[in-house]
Amino acid sequence: MMDFNTYFELLNLYSDYAMVCDSSEWEKWPDFFMEDAFYRLQPRENFEQGLPLCLLALESRAMIQDRVYGVKETLYHDPYYQRHIVGTPRVLSVTDNGKRIHAEANYAVIRTKFDGDSTILSAGYYHDHIVKTDEGLKFQSRLCVYDSEMIANSIIYPI
Amino acid sequence: MMDFNTYFELLNLYSDYAMVCDSSEWEKWPDFFMEDAFYRLQPRENFEQGLPLCLLALESRAMIQDRVYGVKETLYHDPYYQRHIVGTPRVLSVTDNGKRIHAEANYAVIRTKFDGDSTILSAGYYHDHIVKTDEGLKFQSRLCVYDSEMIANSIIYPI
Amino acid sequence: MMDFNTYFELLNLYSDYAMVCDSSEWEKWPDFFMEDAFYRLQPRENFEQGLPLCLLALESRAMIQDRVYGVKETLYHDPYYQRHIVGTPRVLSVTDNGKRIHAEANYAVIRTKFDGDSTILSAGYYHDHIVKTDEGLKFQSRLCVYDSEMIANSIIYPI
Repeated sequence: MMDFNTYFELLNLYSDYAMVCDSSEWEKWPDFFMEDAFYRLQPRENFEQGLPLCLLALESRAMIQDRVYGVKETLYHDPYYQRHIVGTPRVLSVTDNGKRIHAEANYAVIRTKFDGDSTILSAGYYHDHIVKTDEGLKFQSRLCVYDSEMIANSIIYPI
Repeated sequence: MMDFNTYFELLNLYSDYAMVCDSSEWEKWPDFFMEDAFYRLQPRENFEQGLPLCLLALESRAMIQDRVYGVKETLYHDPYYQRHIVGTPRVLSVTDNGKRIHAEANYAVIRTKFDGDSTILSAGYYHDHIVKTDEGLKFQSRLCVYDSEMIANSIIYPI
Repeated sequence: MMDFNTYFELLNLYSDYAMVCDSSEWEKWPDFFMEDAFYRLQPRENFEQGLPLCLLALESRAMIQDRVYGVKETLYHDPYYQRHIVGTPRVLSVTDNGKRIHAEANYAVIRTKFDGDSTILSAGYYHDHIVKTDEGLKFQSRLCVYDSEMIANSIIYPI
Protein backbone atom coordinates (compact mmCIF):
# COMPACT_ATOMS: atom_id res chain seq x y z
CA MET A 1 0.00 0.00 0.00
CA MET A 2 2.84 2.37 0.81
CA ASP A 3 6.60 2.18 0.41
CA PHE A 4 9.02 2.99 3.20
CA ASN A 5 10.37 6.20 1.71
CA THR A 6 6.91 7.72 1.43
CA TYR A 7 6.01 6.61 4.95
CA PHE A 8 9.22 8.12 6.29
CA GLU A 9 8.35 11.38 4.54
CA LEU A 10 4.81 11.25 5.89
CA LEU A 11 5.90 10.83 9.51
CA ASN A 12 8.44 13.62 9.08
CA LEU A 13 5.74 15.87 7.62
CA TYR A 14 3.67 15.40 10.78
CA SER A 15 6.58 15.98 13.14
CA ASP A 16 8.01 18.91 11.14
CA TYR A 17 4.59 20.57 11.17
CA ALA A 18 4.30 20.12 14.94
CA MET A 19 7.77 21.49 15.59
CA VAL A 20 7.24 24.55 13.37
CA CYS A 21 3.97 25.37 15.15
CA ASP A 22 5.71 25.08 18.52
CA SER A 23 8.90 26.96 17.67
CA SER A 24 7.40 30.36 16.98
CA GLU A 25 8.60 29.96 13.38
CA TRP A 26 5.13 30.73 12.11
CA GLU A 27 6.33 32.22 8.84
CA LYS A 28 7.22 28.62 7.85
CA TRP A 29 3.70 27.38 8.54
CA PRO A 30 2.21 28.25 5.10
CA ASP A 31 4.94 26.23 3.35
CA PHE A 32 3.26 23.02 4.49
CA PHE A 33 0.25 23.78 2.28
CA MET A 34 -0.57 23.75 -1.42
CA GLU A 35 -1.49 27.10 -2.93
CA ASP A 36 -5.18 26.18 -3.11
CA ALA A 37 -5.19 24.28 0.19
CA PHE A 38 -7.64 24.84 3.01
CA TYR A 39 -7.02 24.74 6.74
CA ARG A 40 -9.96 24.52 9.11
CA LEU A 41 -10.26 24.38 12.87
CA GLN A 42 -13.70 23.10 13.80
CA PRO A 43 -15.39 21.93 17.02
CA ARG A 44 -16.24 18.25 17.00
CA GLU A 45 -19.89 18.92 17.77
CA ASN A 46 -20.33 20.91 14.56
CA PHE A 47 -18.29 18.51 12.48
CA GLU A 48 -20.27 15.46 13.59
CA GLN A 49 -23.59 17.14 12.90
CA GLY A 50 -22.47 18.35 9.48
CA LEU A 51 -22.73 21.98 10.56
CA PRO A 52 -20.40 24.32 8.70
CA LEU A 53 -19.29 26.74 11.43
CA CYS A 54 -15.54 26.71 12.13
CA LEU A 55 -13.46 28.64 14.62
CA LEU A 56 -11.03 29.33 11.78
CA ALA A 57 -11.44 28.60 8.07
CA LEU A 58 -8.56 29.54 5.81
CA GLU A 59 -9.35 28.75 2.20
CA SER A 60 -5.99 29.25 0.46
CA ARG A 61 -2.29 29.52 1.28
CA ALA A 62 -2.63 33.29 0.90
CA MET A 63 -5.18 33.29 3.72
CA ILE A 64 -2.86 31.12 5.80
CA GLN A 65 -0.06 33.63 5.22
CA ASP A 66 -2.41 36.41 6.25
CA ARG A 67 -3.13 34.55 9.49
CA VAL A 68 0.60 34.39 10.21
CA TYR A 69 0.74 38.15 9.76
CA GLY A 70 -2.14 38.47 12.20
CA VAL A 71 -0.46 36.29 14.80
CA LYS A 72 2.82 38.15 14.52
CA GLU A 73 1.67 41.72 14.09
CA THR A 74 -1.91 42.50 14.97
CA LEU A 75 -3.54 40.06 17.39
CA TYR A 76 -3.49 41.30 20.95
CA HIS A 77 -2.87 38.34 23.22
CA ASP A 78 -1.12 37.04 26.28
CA PRO A 79 1.86 35.07 24.90
CA TYR A 80 2.36 31.40 25.73
CA TYR A 81 4.39 28.43 24.62
CA GLN A 82 2.68 25.52 22.94
CA ARG A 83 3.73 21.92 22.38
CA HIS A 84 2.05 19.48 19.99
CA ILE A 85 2.04 15.80 20.87
CA VAL A 86 0.78 13.96 17.82
CA GLY A 87 0.06 10.26 17.52
CA THR A 88 1.29 8.21 14.57
CA PRO A 89 -1.03 8.96 11.64
CA ARG A 90 -3.32 6.20 10.43
CA VAL A 91 -3.23 5.94 6.67
CA LEU A 92 -6.76 5.65 5.29
CA SER A 93 -5.92 5.49 1.59
CA VAL A 94 -3.16 5.99 -0.93
CA THR A 95 -4.34 6.76 -4.45
CA ASP A 96 -3.28 8.20 -7.81
CA ASN A 97 -0.16 6.03 -8.05
CA GLY A 98 1.01 6.93 -4.56
CA LYS A 99 0.62 10.67 -5.07
CA ARG A 100 -2.36 11.23 -2.78
CA ILE A 101 -2.53 10.19 0.85
CA HIS A 102 -5.54 10.39 3.09
CA ALA A 103 -4.60 10.17 6.78
CA GLU A 104 -5.71 11.07 10.29
CA ALA A 105 -3.85 11.60 13.55
CA ASN A 106 -4.83 12.36 17.13
CA TYR A 107 -3.21 15.37 18.73
CA ALA A 108 -2.96 17.23 22.01
CA VAL A 109 -1.57 20.73 22.29
CA ILE A 110 -0.13 21.71 25.64
CA ARG A 111 0.02 25.37 26.62
CA THR A 112 2.58 26.69 29.06
CA LYS A 113 2.09 30.25 30.24
CA PHE A 114 5.35 32.01 30.98
CA ASP A 115 4.71 32.10 34.70
CA GLY A 116 2.49 29.08 35.04
CA ASP A 117 1.69 25.44 34.72
CA SER A 118 1.33 23.34 31.59
CA THR A 119 -2.27 22.50 30.68
CA ILE A 120 -4.08 21.05 27.69
CA LEU A 121 -5.07 23.82 25.31
CA SER A 122 -6.68 21.61 22.69
CA ALA A 123 -7.21 17.91 22.04
CA GLY A 124 -8.62 16.48 18.86
CA TYR A 125 -7.56 15.01 15.56
CA TYR A 126 -6.29 16.01 12.15
CA HIS A 127 -8.12 14.84 9.05
CA ASP A 128 -5.71 15.35 6.17
CA HIS A 129 -5.41 15.12 2.42
CA ILE A 130 -1.77 15.16 1.37
CA VAL A 131 -0.17 15.32 -2.06
CA LYS A 132 3.30 14.46 -3.26
CA THR A 133 5.00 17.39 -4.98
CA ASP A 134 8.49 18.09 -6.29
CA GLU A 135 9.15 19.87 -3.00
CA GLY A 136 7.97 16.95 -0.89
CA LEU A 137 4.64 16.17 0.74
CA LYS A 138 2.20 19.03 1.27
CA PHE A 139 -1.29 19.40 2.67
CA GLN A 140 -4.09 19.79 0.17
CA SER A 141 -6.32 20.18 3.19
CA ARG A 142 -5.93 19.92 6.94
CA LEU A 143 -9.07 19.84 9.07
CA CYS A 144 -8.48 19.98 12.84
CA VAL A 145 -11.49 18.68 14.73
CA TYR A 146 -11.16 19.62 18.41
CA ASP A 147 -13.06 17.99 21.23
CA SER A 148 -13.87 20.98 23.39
CA GLU A 149 -17.19 22.70 22.94
CA MET A 150 -16.09 25.79 24.76
CA ILE A 151 -15.29 28.62 22.38
CA ALA A 152 -11.53 28.70 22.51
CA ASN A 153 -10.88 32.39 22.05
CA SER A 154 -7.48 31.76 23.51
CA ILE A 155 -6.21 29.75 20.55
CA ILE A 156 -3.86 32.18 18.83
CA TYR A 157 -1.05 30.13 17.33
CA PRO A 158 -1.44 27.41 14.67
CA ILE A 159 -2.81 24.05 15.78
CA MET B 1 13.70 -8.44 12.92
CA MET B 2 10.66 -6.97 11.24
CA ASP B 3 9.87 -5.99 7.65
CA PHE B 4 8.44 -2.64 6.68
CA ASN B 5 4.99 -3.90 5.70
CA THR B 6 4.43 -5.53 9.07
CA TYR B 7 5.68 -2.46 10.90
CA PHE B 8 3.38 -0.25 8.85
CA GLU B 9 0.47 -2.53 9.76
CA LEU B 10 1.51 -2.48 13.42
CA LEU B 11 1.60 1.31 13.65
CA ASN B 12 -1.74 1.50 11.88
CA LEU B 13 -3.21 -1.04 14.31
CA TYR B 14 -2.26 1.23 17.21
CA SER B 15 -3.60 4.37 15.59
CA ASP B 16 -6.78 2.71 14.27
CA TYR B 17 -7.49 1.37 17.75
CA ALA B 18 -7.03 4.81 19.28
CA MET B 19 -9.26 6.47 16.72
CA VAL B 20 -12.06 3.93 17.11
CA CYS B 21 -12.03 4.34 20.90
CA ASP B 22 -12.24 8.11 20.50
CA SER B 23 -14.86 8.23 17.75
CA SER B 24 -17.78 6.71 19.67
CA GLU B 25 -17.64 3.81 17.17
CA TRP B 26 -17.47 1.33 20.02
CA GLU B 27 -19.15 -1.44 18.09
CA LYS B 28 -15.91 -1.66 16.06
CA TRP B 29 -13.81 -2.13 19.20
CA PRO B 30 -14.21 -5.94 19.49
CA ASP B 31 -12.94 -6.38 15.92
CA PHE B 32 -9.42 -5.58 17.08
CA PHE B 33 -9.35 -8.76 19.17
CA MET B 34 -9.06 -12.50 18.56
CA GLU B 35 -12.04 -14.58 19.64
CA ASP B 36 -10.18 -15.95 22.67
CA ALA B 37 -8.39 -12.68 23.45
CA PHE B 38 -8.33 -10.96 26.79
CA TYR B 39 -8.45 -7.27 27.57
CA ARG B 40 -7.51 -6.06 31.03
CA LEU B 41 -7.35 -2.66 32.66
CA GLN B 42 -5.21 -2.86 35.78
CA PRO B 43 -3.70 -0.34 38.20
CA ARG B 44 0.07 -0.24 38.09
CA GLU B 45 0.37 -0.87 41.82
CA ASN B 46 -1.41 -4.23 41.50
CA PHE B 47 0.43 -5.21 38.34
CA GLU B 48 3.87 -4.53 39.80
CA GLN B 49 3.13 -6.50 42.94
CA GLY B 50 1.72 -9.43 40.97
CA LEU B 51 -1.74 -8.90 42.45
CA PRO B 52 -4.56 -10.06 40.21
CA LEU B 53 -7.23 -7.41 40.79
CA CYS B 54 -8.20 -5.45 37.66
CA LEU B 55 -10.62 -2.60 37.16
CA LEU B 56 -11.88 -4.46 34.12
CA ALA B 57 -11.03 -7.99 32.96
CA LEU B 58 -12.66 -9.17 29.75
CA GLU B 59 -11.64 -12.73 28.96
CA SER B 60 -12.99 -13.21 25.41
CA ARG B 61 -14.23 -11.22 22.44
CA ALA B 62 -17.77 -12.06 23.52
CA MET B 63 -17.15 -10.33 26.85
CA ILE B 64 -15.68 -7.36 24.99
CA GLN B 65 -18.81 -7.18 22.86
CA ASP B 66 -20.91 -7.34 26.01
CA ARG B 67 -18.96 -4.39 27.40
CA VAL B 68 -19.80 -2.40 24.25
CA TYR B 69 -23.47 -3.17 24.86
CA GLY B 70 -23.05 -1.94 28.42
CA VAL B 71 -21.40 1.30 27.34
CA LYS B 72 -24.05 1.99 24.71
CA GLU B 73 -27.20 0.80 26.44
CA THR B 74 -27.02 0.29 30.17
CA LEU B 75 -24.29 2.22 31.94
CA TYR B 76 -25.54 5.43 33.49
CA HIS B 77 -22.87 8.07 33.08
CA ASP B 78 -22.11 11.67 32.31
CA PRO B 79 -20.98 11.64 28.66
CA TYR B 80 -17.57 12.96 27.65
CA TYR B 81 -15.21 12.96 24.71
CA GLN B 82 -11.95 11.12 24.94
CA ARG B 83 -8.74 11.34 22.94
CA HIS B 84 -5.90 8.81 23.00
CA ILE B 85 -2.36 10.01 22.45
CA VAL B 86 -0.22 6.91 22.04
CA GLY B 87 3.55 6.78 21.70
CA THR B 88 5.25 4.70 19.04
CA PRO B 89 5.16 1.07 20.23
CA ARG B 90 8.43 -0.54 21.18
CA VAL B 91 8.72 -4.01 19.69
CA LEU B 92 9.94 -6.48 22.30
CA SER B 93 9.93 -9.62 20.16
CA VAL B 94 8.76 -11.05 16.86
CA THR B 95 8.38 -14.83 16.84
CA ASP B 96 6.73 -17.71 15.00
CA ASN B 97 8.03 -16.64 11.60
CA GLY B 98 6.82 -13.08 12.00
CA LYS B 99 3.31 -14.08 13.06
CA ARG B 100 3.51 -13.06 16.72
CA ILE B 101 4.52 -9.63 17.95
CA HIS B 102 5.08 -8.61 21.51
CA ALA B 103 4.99 -4.84 21.97
CA GLU B 104 4.36 -2.04 24.45
CA ALA B 105 3.33 1.58 24.10
CA ASN B 106 2.80 4.49 26.46
CA TYR B 107 -0.56 6.23 26.30
CA ALA B 108 -2.45 9.17 27.71
CA VAL B 109 -6.21 9.54 27.40
CA ILE B 110 -7.56 13.06 27.55
CA ARG B 111 -11.14 13.64 28.64
CA THR B 112 -13.11 16.65 27.53
CA LYS B 113 -16.44 17.21 29.25
CA PHE B 114 -18.99 18.85 27.00
CA ASP B 115 -18.94 22.09 28.95
CA GLY B 116 -15.47 21.92 30.38
CA ASP B 117 -11.76 21.75 30.12
CA SER B 118 -9.59 18.93 28.80
CA THR B 119 -7.85 16.92 31.50
CA ILE B 120 -5.93 13.66 31.71
CA LEU B 121 -8.31 10.80 32.39
CA SER B 122 -5.73 8.04 32.36
CA ALA B 123 -2.01 7.64 31.71
CA GLY B 124 -0.21 4.33 31.49
CA TYR B 125 0.97 1.80 28.98
CA TYR B 126 -0.28 -1.05 26.81
CA HIS B 127 1.38 -4.44 27.07
CA ASP B 128 0.30 -6.34 23.96
CA HIS B 129 0.48 -9.69 22.27
CA ILE B 130 -0.49 -9.40 18.62
CA VAL B 131 -1.02 -12.05 15.95
CA LYS B 132 -1.05 -11.86 12.19
CA THR B 133 -4.32 -13.18 10.73
CA ASP B 134 -5.88 -13.25 7.28
CA GLU B 135 -7.82 -10.14 8.31
CA GLY B 136 -4.70 -8.28 9.44
CA LEU B 137 -3.11 -7.85 12.86
CA LYS B 138 -5.25 -8.52 15.93
CA PHE B 139 -4.73 -8.48 19.67
CA GLN B 140 -4.34 -11.83 21.38
CA SER B 141 -4.18 -9.84 24.57
CA ARG B 142 -4.08 -6.19 25.55
CA LEU B 143 -3.20 -5.30 29.10
CA CYS B 144 -3.55 -1.59 29.99
CA VAL B 145 -1.55 -0.74 33.09
CA TYR B 146 -2.60 2.68 34.35
CA ASP B 147 -0.55 4.83 36.70
CA SER B 148 -3.25 6.24 38.92
CA GLU B 149 -4.02 4.45 42.16
CA MET B 150 -7.32 6.22 42.55
CA ILE B 151 -10.24 4.00 41.61
CA ALA B 152 -11.28 5.42 38.30
CA ASN B 153 -15.01 4.85 38.45
CA SER B 154 -15.31 7.46 35.78
CA ILE B 155 -13.66 5.34 33.06
CA ILE B 156 -16.59 4.29 30.92
CA TYR B 157 -15.34 4.09 27.34
CA PRO B 158 -12.58 1.78 26.08
CA ILE B 159 -8.99 2.70 26.91
CA MET C 1 18.15 9.24 3.30
CA MET C 2 17.52 6.46 5.77
CA ASP C 3 16.83 2.74 5.40
CA PHE C 4 13.98 0.99 7.15
CA ASN C 5 16.11 -1.00 9.60
CA THR C 6 17.77 2.12 10.94
CA TYR C 7 14.45 3.93 11.20
CA PHE C 8 12.94 0.99 13.06
CA GLU C 9 15.89 1.07 15.47
CA LEU C 10 15.53 4.82 15.87
CA LEU C 11 11.85 4.66 16.78
CA ASN C 12 12.55 1.83 19.21
CA LEU C 13 15.35 3.85 20.80
CA TYR C 14 12.88 6.64 21.54
CA SER C 15 10.21 4.32 22.90
CA ASP C 16 12.66 2.17 24.89
CA TYR C 17 14.09 5.30 26.48
CA ALA C 18 10.63 6.52 27.44
CA MET C 19 9.63 3.18 28.91
CA VAL C 20 12.82 2.83 30.97
CA CYS C 21 12.36 6.33 32.42
CA ASP C 22 8.78 5.47 33.35
CA SER C 23 9.39 1.99 34.77
CA SER C 24 11.58 2.92 37.72
CA GLU C 25 14.38 0.95 35.99
CA TRP C 26 16.70 3.93 36.29
CA GLU C 27 19.85 1.83 36.44
CA LYS C 28 19.22 1.10 32.72
CA TRP C 29 19.09 4.80 31.87
CA PRO C 30 22.88 5.35 31.43
CA ASP C 31 23.01 2.51 28.88
CA PHE C 32 21.31 4.74 26.32
CA PHE C 33 24.34 7.04 26.26
CA MET C 34 27.89 6.97 24.89
CA GLU C 35 30.64 7.15 27.48
CA ASP C 36 31.46 10.77 26.59
CA ALA C 37 27.82 11.77 26.03
CA PHE C 38 26.11 14.73 27.61
CA TYR C 39 22.57 15.02 28.88
CA ARG C 40 21.11 18.44 29.58
CA LEU C 41 17.76 19.65 30.84
CA GLN C 42 17.36 23.31 30.03
CA PRO C 43 14.51 25.83 30.15
CA ARG C 44 13.44 27.04 26.73
CA GLU C 45 13.92 30.68 27.68
CA ASN C 46 17.63 30.12 28.37
CA PHE C 47 18.14 27.93 25.33
CA GLU C 48 16.57 30.42 22.93
CA GLN C 49 18.65 33.29 24.28
CA GLY C 50 21.84 31.27 24.13
CA LEU C 51 22.23 31.38 27.91
CA PRO C 52 24.12 28.44 29.37
CA LEU C 53 22.21 27.76 32.60
CA CYS C 54 20.61 24.31 32.79
CA LEU C 55 18.50 22.68 35.46
CA LEU C 56 20.66 19.60 35.04
CA ALA C 57 23.87 19.20 33.01
CA LEU C 58 25.48 15.77 33.03
CA GLU C 59 28.65 15.78 30.97
CA SER C 60 29.51 12.07 30.77
CA ARG C 61 27.94 8.65 31.26
CA ALA C 62 29.67 8.50 34.65
CA MET C 63 27.79 11.63 35.72
CA ILE C 64 24.56 10.11 34.42
CA GLN C 65 25.25 7.01 36.51
CA ASP C 66 25.89 9.22 39.50
CA ARG C 67 22.53 10.88 38.97
CA VAL C 68 20.86 7.46 39.03
CA TYR C 69 22.55 6.81 42.37
CA GLY C 70 21.20 10.13 43.61
CA VAL C 71 17.67 9.36 42.49
CA LYS C 72 17.72 5.92 44.08
CA GLU C 73 19.65 6.56 47.27
CA THR C 74 20.06 10.13 48.35
CA LEU C 75 17.47 12.56 46.99
CA TYR C 76 14.68 13.22 49.45
CA HIS C 77 11.44 13.48 47.51
CA ASP C 78 7.79 12.65 47.40
CA PRO C 79 7.55 9.65 45.03
CA TYR C 80 5.38 9.75 41.92
CA TYR C 81 4.80 7.84 38.72
CA GLN C 82 5.74 9.41 35.43
CA ARG C 83 4.71 8.65 31.87
CA HIS C 84 6.43 9.96 28.73
CA ILE C 85 4.36 10.56 25.63
CA VAL C 86 6.79 11.26 22.81
CA GLY C 87 5.93 12.25 19.26
CA THR C 88 7.55 10.60 16.26
CA PRO C 89 11.05 12.07 15.92
CA ARG C 90 11.78 14.28 12.93
CA VAL C 91 15.05 13.34 11.31
CA LEU C 92 17.10 16.45 10.58
CA SER C 93 20.16 14.80 9.07
CA VAL C 94 21.89 11.47 8.57
CA THR C 95 25.64 11.71 8.01
CA ASP C 96 28.89 9.73 8.15
CA ASN C 97 27.53 6.90 5.98
CA GLY C 98 24.40 6.48 8.08
CA LYS C 99 26.28 6.35 11.38
CA ARG C 100 25.18 9.71 12.77
CA ILE C 101 21.59 10.85 13.13
CA HIS C 102 20.42 14.26 14.16
CA ALA C 103 16.79 14.24 15.30
CA GLU C 104 14.24 16.04 17.45
CA ALA C 105 11.00 14.97 19.11
CA ASN C 106 8.30 16.68 21.14
CA TYR C 107 7.50 15.17 24.51
CA ALA C 108 5.12 15.50 27.43
CA VAL C 109 5.75 13.86 30.79
CA ILE C 110 2.69 13.15 32.90
CA ARG C 111 3.07 12.85 36.65
CA THR C 112 0.66 10.83 38.74
CA LYS C 113 0.97 11.20 42.50
CA PHE C 114 0.07 8.04 44.36
CA ASP C 115 -3.07 9.54 45.82
CA GLY C 116 -3.83 12.07 43.17
CA ASP C 117 -4.63 13.16 39.68
CA SER C 118 -2.47 12.99 36.58
CA THR C 119 -1.02 16.33 35.51
CA ILE C 120 1.63 17.53 33.08
CA LEU C 121 5.01 17.64 34.81
CA SER C 122 7.01 18.80 31.81
CA ALA C 123 6.44 19.54 28.13
CA GLY C 124 9.17 20.30 25.66
CA TYR C 125 11.35 18.66 23.07
CA TYR C 126 14.44 16.52 22.73
CA HIS C 127 17.28 17.69 20.52
CA ASP C 128 19.44 14.62 19.92
CA HIS C 129 22.66 13.47 18.32
CA ILE C 130 22.67 9.70 17.94
CA VAL C 131 25.40 7.32 16.81
CA LYS C 132 25.27 3.77 15.52
CA THR C 133 27.42 1.41 17.62
CA ASP C 134 27.92 -2.35 17.74
CA GLU C 135 25.42 -2.38 20.60
CA GLY C 136 22.79 -0.44 18.65
CA LEU C 137 21.93 3.25 18.57
CA LYS C 138 23.08 5.43 21.44
CA PHE C 139 22.86 9.09 22.35
CA GLN C 140 25.98 11.17 21.82
CA SER C 141 23.98 13.98 23.33
CA ARG C 142 20.41 14.54 24.46
CA LEU C 143 19.29 18.06 25.19
CA CYS C 144 15.78 18.38 26.71
CA VAL C 145 14.40 21.87 26.24
CA TYR C 146 11.34 22.32 28.45
CA ASP C 147 8.70 24.98 27.99
CA SER C 148 8.03 25.96 31.58
CA GLU C 149 9.93 28.88 33.04
CA MET C 150 9.08 27.93 36.58
CA ILE C 151 12.00 26.28 38.34
CA ALA C 152 10.95 22.67 38.42
CA ASN C 153 12.48 21.56 41.67
CA SER C 154 10.04 18.70 41.58
CA ILE C 155 11.69 16.98 38.59
CA ILE C 156 13.47 14.05 40.18
CA TYR C 157 13.38 11.18 37.71
CA PRO C 158 14.91 11.22 34.21
CA ILE C 159 13.08 13.17 31.50
